[in-house]
Amino acid sequence: MSDIKKVVLAYSGGLDTSVILKWLQVTYNCEVVTFTADLGQGEELEPARAKAQLMGVPDKHIYIDDLREEFVRDFVFPMFRANARYEGDYLLGTSIARPLISKRLIEIARETGADAIAHGATGKGNDQVRFELSAYALDPNIKVIAPWREWDLNSRTALIEWAEQHQIPVPKDKRGESPFSTDANLLHTSSEGKVLEDPWEETPDYVYSRTVNPEDAPDSPEYITIDFTKGDGVALNGEAMSPATLLTALNELGRKHGIGRLDLVENRFVGMKSRGMYETPGGTIYAAAHRGIEQITLDRGAAHLKDELMPKYAELIYNGFWFAPEREMLQAAIDHSQSRVNGTVRLKLYKGSASVVGRKSPDSLYSERHVTFEDDAGAYDQKDAQGFIKLNALRLRLLAQRDSGGA
Amino acid sequence: MSDIKKVVLAYSGGLDTSVILKWLQVTYNCEVVTFTADLGQGEELEPARAKAQLMGVPDKHIYIDDLREEFVRDFVFPMFRANARYEGDYLLGTSIARPLISKRLIEIARETGADAIAHGATGKGNDQVRFELSAYALDPNIKVIAPWREWDLNSRTALIEWAEQHQIPVPKDKRGESPFSTDANLLHTSSEGKVLEDPWEETPDYVYSRTVNPEDAPDSPEYITIDFTKGDGVALNGEAMSPATLLTALNELGRKHGIGRLDLVENRFVGMKSRGMYETPGGTIYAAAHRGIEQITLDRGAAHLKDELMPKYAELIYNGFWFAPEREMLQAAIDHSQSRVNGTVRLKLYKGSASVVGRKSPDSLYSERHVTFEDDAGAYDQKDAQGFIKLNALRLRLLAQRDSGGA
Amino acid sequence: MSDIKKVVLAYSGGLDTSVILKWLQVTYNCEVVTFTADLGQGEELEPARAKAQLMGVPDKHIYIDDLREEFVRDFVFPMFRANARYEGDYLLGTSIARPLISKRLIEIARETGADAIAHGATGKGNDQVRFELSAYALDPNIKVIAPWREWDLNSRTALIEWAEQHQIPVPKDKRGESPFSTDANLLHTSSEGKVLEDPWEETPDYVYSRTVNPEDAPDSPEYITIDFTKGDGVALNGEAMSPATLLTALNELGRKHGIGRLDLVENRFVGMKSRGMYETPGGTIYAAAHRGIEQITLDRGAAHLKDELMPKYAELIYNGFWFAPEREMLQAAIDHSQSRVNGTVRLKLYKGSASVVGRKSPDSLYSERHVTFEDDAGAYDQKDAQGFIKLNALRLRLLAQRDSGGA
Amino acid sequence: MSDIKKVVLAYSGGLDTSVILKWLQVTYNCEVVTFTADLGQGEELEPARAKAQLMGVPDKHIYIDDLREEFVRDFVFPMFRANARYEGDYLLGTSIARPLISKRLIEIARETGADAIAHGATGKGNDQVRFELSAYALDPNIKVIAPWREWDLNSRTALIEWAEQHQIPVPKDKRGESPFSTDANLLHTSSEGKVLEDPWEETPDYVYSRTVNPEDAPDSPEYITIDFTKGDGVALNGEAMSPATLLTALNELGRKHGIGRLDLVENRFVGMKSRGMYETPGGTIYAAAHRGIEQITLDRGAAHLKDELMPKYAELIYNGFWFAPEREMLQAAIDHSQSRVNGTVRLKLYKGSASVVGRKSPDSLYSERHVTFEDDAGAYDQKDAQGFIKLNALRLRLLAQRDSGGA
Repeated sequence: MSDIKKVVLAYSGGLDTSVILKWLQVTYNCEVVTFTADLGQGEELEPARAKAQLMGVPDKHIYIDDLREEFVRDFVFPMFRANARYEGDYLLGTSIARPLISKRLIEIARETGADAIAHGATGKGNDQVRFELSAYALDPNIKVIAPWREWDLNSRTALIEWAEQHQIPVPKDKRGESPFSTDANLLHTSSEGKVLEDPWEETPDYVYSRTVNPEDAPDSPEYITIDFTKGDGVALNGEAMSPATLLTALNELGRKHGIGRLDLVENRFVGMKSRGMYETPGGTIYAAAHRGIEQITLDRGAAHLKDELMPKYAELIYNGFWFAPEREMLQAAIDHSQSRVNGTVRLKLYKGSASVVGRKSPDSLYSERHVTFEDDAGAYDQKDAQGFIKLNALRLRLLAQRDSGGA
Repeated sequence: MSDIKKVVLAYSGGLDTSVILKWLQVTYNCEVVTFTADLGQGEELEPARAKAQLMGVPDKHIYIDDLREEFVRDFVFPMFRANARYEGDYLLGTSIARPLISKRLIEIARETGADAIAHGATGKGNDQVRFELSAYALDPNIKVIAPWREWDLNSRTALIEWAEQHQIPVPKDKRGESPFSTDANLLHTSSEGKVLEDPWEETPDYVYSRTVNPEDAPDSPEYITIDFTKGDGVALNGEAMSPATLLTALNELGRKHGIGRLDLVENRFVGMKSRGMYETPGGTIYAAAHRGIEQITLDRGAAHLKDELMPKYAELIYNGFWFAPEREMLQAAIDHSQSRVNGTVRLKLYKGSASVVGRKSPDSLYSERHVTFEDDAGAYDQKDAQGFIKLNALRLRLLAQRDSGGA
Repeated sequence: MSDIKKVVLAYSGGLDTSVILKWLQVTYNCEVVTFTADLGQGEELEPARAKAQLMGVPDKHIYIDDLREEFVRDFVFPMFRANARYEGDYLLGTSIARPLISKRLIEIARETGADAIAHGATGKGNDQVRFELSAYALDPNIKVIAPWREWDLNSRTALIEWAEQHQIPVPKDKRGESPFSTDANLLHTSSEGKVLEDPWEETPDYVYSRTVNPEDAPDSPEYITIDFTKGDGVALNGEAMSPATLLTALNELGRKHGIGRLDLVENRFVGMKSRGMYETPGGTIYAAAHRGIEQITLDRGAAHLKDELMPKYAELIYNGFWFAPEREMLQAAIDHSQSRVNGTVRLKLYKGSASVVGRKSPDSLYSERHVTFEDDAGAYDQKDAQGFIKLNALRLRLLAQRDSGGA
Repeated sequence: MSDIKKVVLAYSGGLDTSVILKWLQVTYNCEVVTFTADLGQGEELEPARAKAQLMGVPDKHIYIDDLREEFVRDFVFPMFRANARYEGDYLLGTSIARPLISKRLIEIARETGADAIAHGATGKGNDQVRFELSAYALDPNIKVIAPWREWDLNSRTALIEWAEQHQIPVPKDKRGESPFSTDANLLHTSSEGKVLEDPWEETPDYVYSRTVNPEDAPDSPEYITIDFTKGDGVALNGEAMSPATLLTALNELGRKHGIGRLDLVENRFVGMKSRGMYETPGGTIYAAAHRGIEQITLDRGAAHLKDELMPKYAELIYNGFWFAPEREMLQAAIDHSQSRVNGTVRLKLYKGSASVVGRKSPDSLYSERHVTFEDDAGAYDQKDAQGFIKLNALRLRLLAQRDSGGA
């Protein structure tokens, strides 16, 4: 064991991180500072305070922060400006929360003079990578403790036994094997493991917690509008809202209409495939709306460059490189494109789908004058198309002449 | 007018191309060969024969070909291997049909000794570009006549007047302004213009012709399976099918469940934005299924490279560069990745959505042994993750040391 | 002829643009404003004033501007931050000058109330595209006159005859066919045409004007240093210099040592291949130096992203899209990477080569502690490499197991 | 120590791998099979046999293979088809040899029934990654022993002491600290460490072993031709040669003229920067020639796609992913482009430079007819350029209208 004096633990108040809290005290004989973040996961946080106190953490070392606005404003919205999707579909709900948690862990480490941080992510997943890359990028000298990679509590039974030996209360429902593992924040809830481990088996309905089954959603569609300013959502149905308030309201709409369920087999950064279930109700609506407003306000060159850069950008976030220079470079390019992404998108929500049905903008690049089948009063000279085609074709004709063996 | 002796016309039998047929005879004083393709657009083609005969085209110069299998096998399926979507959403239903029509036009020109081809695409759209780039790529010396860029029949009234002056029958429903313009083939139907020209207005339901309104779709979901071999669909619900048969059957399923409607403002190659409505019922189901089977059979490196290349590949097809070397290079890379994309995908179809709910494969790369939360019997050593993270973090730590001004 | 009242002409004072000046007056019966830019081409500009006056251009309509500092500071240096090379080798010396000329043409058009601009680029080359795309991007309503695409003076003889008919002095050395065509500015001189048209024939030595033949360069190498701040050169051999002064001094060094000659067959945007000879003496030294300083100050992630984006960035500049949003987005990404690109590069100049032999920086990321073969005092734990390799290999092993048919 | 029965060691016969041989015998108490490859490194290999015998390796377990033709044909040439350069300059001479060595190690492991391989690369470098990723990709169950990451012989003195204790002969010149470390094969020689560790200090001339100092090279240039077939070199000065013979001959020319020296600070895959010196005499000439023949035989679309893919392709090889699916996909795309890359390139070799001065091909796409400044007999209609520019400008004009606030 290296020489650790004080460690800041990402602490949820649940069984696993309570065991870790104790294990850190016992194993490293060090002070533990707990950090519990409200990222909109929908759980009460005060119980975490009581539990930490119970394990002897002094009040000044118990941090409980509401990070919801910062989360949406500085992480979720910038990411959605890029229309980021990992492997075609995943909206990166877990990935985007990790760097913020690490940022706060490092800040608290500085405030409290801690020399280490600790987290409860396992050695098989992406989250350990995301936590640690962010932490190292923000403080190159920080030490990181990842108990799941260190201890030998490698079965549920061993963990619970250890808890009981150390007077950690074990809730009844944790005694049996939990059927799957979940992570939640304002953007999404993810589940994986156990009943989800066979990718041929349909995800049971009870795994979903953030959305009604589309079959149980209202039989009539609901229409909404979202307003955007510089690429970020600012109002719902005409009512101005802060980032977190807007996402919360969209989550409610998504829940009601069964929007944002995703069943995915994805490639983890550590090299294996895993099967996950994601619910991103508000984010799914928001993503559709953002593409909708870009359709009329972004130039083709900007739009296509964004589409080309997106897979790499999404991969960087998925792999934990939020605080890497290349992510920041891509963000600079993306943000540059959003200065005129202003306007209103109208969407239809219905039984699992969020469809753009209208968009308007004072900054629209759509020109009815140019596109019309009617008389366009000289806006566009169809004869220009001939030269355009001829010169685009020239290299293909030279190729064809070469390949057919003559002019 | 340049010196044209014989021209092959892409002829639908409709009013516009009938006017063009006559206009070519009158204006160029040349022979016209008509070519009518069955691409699955769902219209009878024999009336085209009668109309061509009526305008004096000899039987040997009337070509009516069923290209449905070639279309799906050699164009649609290769494109879907790439998961191609233009601007995030458009499945390229019109774009992918054009190169095949041009290929056949050039073949017929060779068979009949024609020196030119003609088409009915306007000077504002993408189709003229797609037709002509493909034609030039296949025959660098072919001449191309695009009447819409040449004549002065620039209003509906003018066109109809000209038709009547030249004894071309004008169907009653063509006398008024048509409310929008459509294109159809086995993959999709697109509509644009007129009632669709205001991108804020919702597409009226009567514009859709290939799908029921999701609100009118069955209240119970339907489950299906699609089998893939080397990245191509080969069976529906266990029943082997040819490419066109499979797509036809999926279209029927998509129609029933209201799947594949898309309202899009897109960027045309010629430089303007246009608003289109697309219905791609079977293609939307197929696209989801293809991603599903790739999830368990494609390695991450291959999958991510495909995602990075896709926007460029889709843009090439959209812009008409199917027969360009760079599209062929990308196809070679994509096809290389598909050799083990075999297996079965299970989908749930319900009120507008096609969702993958299961996938299995003899070539699966998903390893439950590695991913399990349970004891993995040594398949994966969690301690490896530490070194993995440490070396991935090294450059970020060196950066942080530099940027904070010291080690 | 469309209705033009006043046109701003990019005027060199040479025979061709003098003919154009007159031709515009005669053909359009409009006022002509002349604009002559000093971009460091090394020609006296005052003769252009006298010639314009001779053709009746009033003094207030004669613009002669020294744009050298703006050229290097706002165009050349930003481009070199990207390490831009078109088709692997071309340093874009002509391409990068065109947008600045167009910018000034449009400014002068606004100042003088002109409704059009004119340039002397032919209809076969890239420069017409570059001039006009930039002009349209800066003023969507500007009219553009490109005489070489309009008139019928399509041979040298015809041009000279027309000049004589219109009392335009024809210098003796212009009477015969010139052996090739050149363009020059502070960054480079290019030549093409005539003796260069056979790509198998070596470029004759007399074509080069900015560099000595390496065989005639000094027999001893010369060592120099260039200092960089935020990615831009700021000093030569320790002496602070403005951008244009620095490039001028490097040109002198490059000339002396025969550096920066390039014989290239390139692909023009208009679709054909052309063979060009380029001399970029100072730019070649500067480009090597910029890469040198980036080697120690740029993080790998940033450096590799830059390398991946570069070909597209270079293509955009080559094709004339300097003022397009996607070029600006890429520039935002590139500039973001340069904030710590500070330090000094040492180069050896010798008979055609500029080689980086040393680099140092207060912002260096190079860590001798980490890389040393000697005892590194724990800076790097070699055991971390095992986990790093194991997890990078995991997907490859899963693939190999699948492909060999078993675990 | 895990349970190893037989290990195949990549054995050079030098001191380090001799120590490893013995260390494996002593530490793992296992049989050792030695594999010594002739990759053109220019050393006699038979002494390696005697040394292995001396340490008790039976003859049937001593493999000495001449892999030079396979190396150039199946690894070097395919890589040069891509014009691969890592970080702008490095021709990947070490990187490309590693996968071949691993391939042969795995083959020999199969032939001899070995369950492990071992190599002499350290835990700080790229080569360990390259060896092991390739090995795992070819045999997912192989065990890998990397003594430098395992043992505690972490100083030169410790190694030599251990050698002497175990009766391994230590050559006199190995007793002192060697001034730098080298790797060599037919493509290049690299050196790093010691005197090279300060990136501000010029590489001393004695570090170079494969090239004369350009200052000592002949004072007159030498002209050569290289013929290409399908993107691969097949003849020098008209004389047909096998791949390895051609590269050997080019190395001799490069040596004589001082061509291919490179002083680089590069980013290692393991996260640190290192400074290396590379000599790639023949490869540098060959790379220039390959670009030269592509200039006239590759279409622009193909050429630009290759340039865009190249940085990723080079990174994959540098990082050790030769046997990864994404490298193979890129190779498929690249190879597709080379089918008509045939012809002859003429180069001038002079004091450190290899410059293309001429290229010709039966498959040339260069069209003097199109590019000429003279009368082109209608090959190209300059008026087409207007439409081409107009439509390329349309989106920029719509942007400018929007951004200036009006039409």
